[in-house]
This record gives sequence, structure tokens and C-alpha cells, in this order.
Amino acid sequence: MAERQFNFSAGPGVLPESVLTEIASELPVYKDIGTSILEISHRSAPYTELVESAKSSLRQLLGMEDDWHILFLQGGASLQFYQVPLNFLPKDGSADYIVTGSWAKKAHKEALFVGDARVAASSEADSFSHIPDRATWNLNPDAAYLHYTSNNTIFGTQFKDVPDVSVPLVCDASSDFLSKPIRMDGFGLIYAGAQKNMGPAGVTIVIIRDDLVSRSGVRKASLPTMLSYAVHAENKSLYNTPAVFAIYAVGLVMKWLSAQGGLSVMGKRNERKAGKLYAEIDRTGFYRGTARKEDRSLMNVTFRLSSEALEKLLIKEATAAGLDGLEGHRAVGGLRASLYNAFPEEGVDELVAFMKEFERRNG
Amino acid sequence: MAERQFNFSAGPGVLPESVLTEIASELPVYKDIGTSILEISHRSAPYTELVESAKSSLRQLLGMEDDWHILFLQGGASLQFYQVPLNFLPKDGSADYIVTGSWAKKAHKEALFVGDARVAASSEADSFSHIPDRATWNLNPDAAYLHYTSNNTIFGTQFKDVPDVSVPLVCDASSDFLSKPIRMDGFGLIYAGAQKNMGPAGVTIVIIRDDLVSRSGVRKASLPTMLSYAVHAENKSLYNTPAVFAIYAVGLVMKWLSAQGGLSVMGKRNERKAGKLYAEIDRTGFYRGTARKEDRSLMNVTFRLSSEALEKLLIKEATAAGLDGLEGHRAVGGLRASLYNAFPEEGVDELVAFMKEFERRNG
Repeated sequence: MAERQFNFSAGPGVLPESVLTEIASELPVYKDIGTSILEISHRSAPYTELVESAKSSLRQLLGMEDDWHILFLQGGASLQFYQVPLNFLPKDGSADYIVTGSWAKKAHKEALFVGDARVAASSEADSFSHIPDRATWNLNPDAAYLHYTSNNTIFGTQFKDVPDVSVPLVCDASSDFLSKPIRMDGFGLIYAGAQKNMGPAGVTIVIIRDDLVSRSGVRKASLPTMLSYAVHAENKSLYNTPAVFAIYAVGLVMKWLSAQGGLSVMGKRNERKAGKLYAEIDRTGFYRGTARKEDRSLMNVTFRLSSEALEKLLIKEATAAGLDGLEGHRAVGGLRASLYNAFPEEGVDELVAFMKEFERRNG
Repeated sequence: MAERQFNFSAGPGVLPESVLTEIASELPVYKDIGTSILEISHRSAPYTELVESAKSSLRQLLGMEDDWHILFLQGGASLQFYQVPLNFLPKDGSADYIVTGSWAKKAHKEALFVGDARVAASSEADSFSHIPDRATWNLNPDAAYLHYTSNNTIFGTQFKDVPDVSVPLVCDASSDFLSKPIRMDGFGLIYAGAQKNMGPAGVTIVIIRDDLVSRSGVRKASLPTMLSYAVHAENKSLYNTPAVFAIYAVGLVMKWLSAQGGLSVMGKRNERKAGKLYAEIDRTGFYRGTARKEDRSLMNVTFRLSSEALEKLLIKEATAAGLDGLEGHRAVGGLRASLYNAFPEEGVDELVAFMKEFERRNG
């Protein structure tokens, strides 16, 4: 079997190797059912079992009570950008958005197709290098919800705490969901594409509180069936054929997370991994972190060198050394090391050693 | 390894076993790239290669010229029900719908959220047991498009020919796409969930003609980004993260289809498979086909016995004999044998033998 590299890709990102070998071992026949997971009906007993088990793991990991629905939808966070306001932004009301990066900006843009979506705070003028200080937020106490992006993959920033506001929080947690414990009160809805911390691309996990489901009909007359949270909640994500395989893979990752010890263990591990890399970045002036220190992301570590030529050289040599996917996002350039849940600590150690050696040769 | 059963499920349906073992063999590392297909960036060279190869196989299978775009979207046919009118149904115009079953009805219902969607013909009064005769269609020559469902999985009917009309055809071909050659002129857009003839659930193939893409902005002011065909065509289905794994699997099925000899070979094989089963159904009066003979589907063979008790007994005994998934849709009951592309002819022979023996014992 070909060797596996360390995969620093921002997403789709690395998955636990044990999950991948389990998937392979369950092809072309899943357990004793005579067919594979890719071919089973979404109304069959084996599917119901696996999806219920995935949901129960997720409930346990997050300490979610029964007043939360767990939905497995399609279309990624990008479709949620539109679906959220279509369900919750009333004609005679407004919603607040904290704009901390490209994805937050897109979420706000799609909300404008629906109604009055206000920018309550933005760090765009500073190239999204930080999370706007809480004191500067211009909040509307009557907003239908406050939308924010908990981690910004492109700019390498992350909210350290759940915002303390009086309206329901809606969060795009695509790139840091399940990477640490999360305090659930305050949230009305959290959505996340699976392809960073939870599974392969192709399924979006949406958790939504009961009282928000009942509020989701504010534009009922123009709410198409597939974009209604109430429909998906009522039908337990079986209104139409779900992405069976991706959901199955997510279930395996949930089990893996539980076996690791849950979210507080993951949180500590992720802090340690990112901490090692930031320490190396800060050790001399050779590397330079792009995000304000107190807002640095534990998931996506973004940094630069003194020249683009040197950055290219590092990426080339790192790739040859089995450290893959270190290019920054094409919109900003530079370097980015994504350290999602399944990224092994040895990979960080190898990158740090490589960076020291690279500095020695090029410093 | 556990034995594989014959899977008559209506979808997700059976896939070629060789495709399943190929998928397993490429985990946890895809070719020589050091990571698996579940973890690669959708902007990486290996992904670009596989998606371009899938598209080129599809072009070849259908004999499509360059004026067709191939999109890989999410949300299933159910999201297309809404996306089609949102892109093509103008405020001051209308569209025609041929309603031949539950899915066609849902497509029409979602179009009503957008504008004036007319029912040009329907067989609902006859429990959808046939395709309305062409002479009875009440067409609007100024319709923006005519929407129809080429195969009706629940009621076991199928259009034998592409409707000959003067407006662009939009077709939900979810359950018979690539099961036989198709004459492409006349069509503006064809969509199909992958999970019947093409791959696992989780990706929708949309093929759309160039001139329709440019017409897709009829409601531009209210067209959210993720629901715009023009956006997906411009971005080659990379506006957001696509369902990488499902698309990879579809690519493998395309290669398998080409290796079988293409769509005319598949068409003949599918005719032979369904022909054997219908012959058995018609042999005596013990079994009774539910669809009008000239409209019978080659994909979903629906039939009944003289009592529900007998139907239940057949399903139970068939399942025990390794013939799985023969229950009719829960909305109509009875029996249904789905014979998609990858369903092997031996499975039909076994079912026919089983049915003869079942009749001998219970007739």
C-alpha cells in the first residue's frame, strides 16, 4: 500500500486512518446484509440504525438535550447561507451579521437576497486579520438572529468564546465544529459542512433548537419544501434521499471522536498541536503569523515568509518531504497549515522540525 | 467476505461489484498521492483529473457536443424541482408540466412556489397507471419549458420516446438516465440523482444546454448564488465544495458503462432483463402488472398478487432466498423489482425461477 502523507489541506481535510480502513473493510458488503453501504435504501433498517447511532454519538459529544434536532442536509454551508434567512428573516424585521472573512461575507450577501441583513461588525478594513472587539459591535436588540462564523479558514482567525448576545445565535461552524467543547445555550442553529472535522464532503450537519424550528415559517408562502428546516426536522432528514455514504462516514468519525475521549480531549490536543506551530512561528522573525495573536485559529494556522519566492520554495520542499497542502488560500497567498481533529500530532512535530531546518538554510 | 444478495431496491440501487472493489482498493490511499479520495482538495490536480475524465466519459456515452454543460450538484432531484422554475420560469410567463407520478407532482408543486406552472397532462385520475397519450396534452406553445419525468419509479411507467414539442424540454431522468441511448435534441436540461443508474446517493447530475444557461437569469434579482445554474456552469461545479467521493464513484460507473459497450448495449440488456420478468408476470393470471402494457418501465417492474397476504409471503420468502428489496413503494404497496443498469441478468433469472416455483406452491 502506498504511504500516507501528512495532509494539511484546509478541506476536504484529513480523516482518521482507522475510519478509512473500516470503510474499505465494509466494501463490497456491509456487515451481514448482502449489499454495500453505497447501495442500501435510506429507509432500510441498517441505514436507520447507523444514522440513529451517529446522532446519539453527536448528542453525547455535545451534551445536547432532546430539544435539539440533528439534520443531515446537502449543499454545504453555501446553501445554508441562503436557507437561514429564508427561514428566519421576517419581511418586517432584520438580522445581524458579524463579518470576519470571505465566508461570513458570502453568508451576509445571500441574506440580502431575502431581506434586511445588517452588518453589525466587520474586520474587512483590516484584511480580516482579527475578530472585531465585542465592544465595537453595533447590535440590534430586535434582530431575528445574530449570524457569525466561528472559525475563518482563509484568514486564520477564530472566536475564542461564544458571543454573549440577547438574540438567538446562528453559527457557521464548518471549520471548527467538534474541535473543542461548546456551550450550547445561546445558539438557535449551528451548521457545518462535514469535510473539515467530521467526514467527507457531501453532507452538512445542521443542529437546530426546537423553538427555532417552529419559527422557521416566517416566509411560509415562498418557502420551497427542500429549503424548509421544519420539513427536514419533521421527516428526520428523510424528506428526500440523503447522502447515505457521507452520513455513514460521519457516523464512523463520531465513534472515533468518542473513542478519543470526547471534545475536551480533542480541545486540549488541538490547543497543543496549534501551540507548537505558533511557538515555532514566533520563535524568531523568520516566519510571521497573519492573524492578531489573541484571535489565532487552532484549526488553520496562517503565516508568511519575507518573500513569495521563499514561500514557494518552502511549499515545494515540504511537499517533497511528505508535508502536503501548505499553500495558503488563493485569495491571500502565503502559507496555511490546517490542523483538524484527525491531523496527527506527529505531523505538527515534523512540520516544526522542517521549518527549523528550512530557516537554518534560508534565514 | 459475506455473500452479496440480489438487490432489487428502487434506489439507492445496486452498483457494479467491480466498482465497489475498486473503491475499497483505493482506500486509505488513492493511487500514489499519499492520501485518500475522501480527503483531497476539490481544487487539487487528482480531483480535476477524475472529474474531467468522468465528464468526458459522459459526453462520449451520450454523444454530447460542447454546447452542453455537465454539472455535479447536491440536494437531489428534489432541489431541482425548485431550482428549475427559479431559473427559467419568468414572472410574465408560464411552464408546462406532464404529471405522471408522485415525483412529477412534487416537481409541479415546487414550481408553483415560483410562478405559473400549468399541468398540461396528468394520469393521476387513473392512479398514474399510464403515460397520458400525446394527443391529449394541452400544451402552451409559449411555455418557457415543458417538464416531464421520463420514468416513474413508484408506478412503473416510462416514456418510450422523447416528447416531440416546440419548447425546450426539461427532464427529471433520475431513474432511467443512461439506461439506454437518448436523442439529445429537444432537451434544454436533464437532471438525475445518481443513486439509481450512476452511483451512490449524494450527487445530482445536471446537463444543461448553453443557450439555456444564458436564459437562466430570468429572475436574477431574487436568484441566490447556490441556485443559479449560470454560477455552477461558470465555476465548473466548483463554486463550493462538491461531493467529491460521490463524483469519484460516478466516474468509475461511467468507465464501467463504457467498458460494457455504451448505452446501446445497456439498452438492449435492460430490455432483455425487463422482458424476461414481464413475460413471467403475463404467463398466467397469477401475477398482475400494474402499468398499462405499452408504458411499462424497463427500470421498475411493478406487479401485484391476488392478496396482500400472498404479497407479503412472497417478499418474505424471496428475501430469505437472497432476492432483496422487492417491496413496492409504501404509497402503493404490491411488489416492485428495480432492474437498474448494474442489476445482473442472473438476478432476473433467479427471480423468474423463484416466481414460477412460488406460483406452483401457492397458485
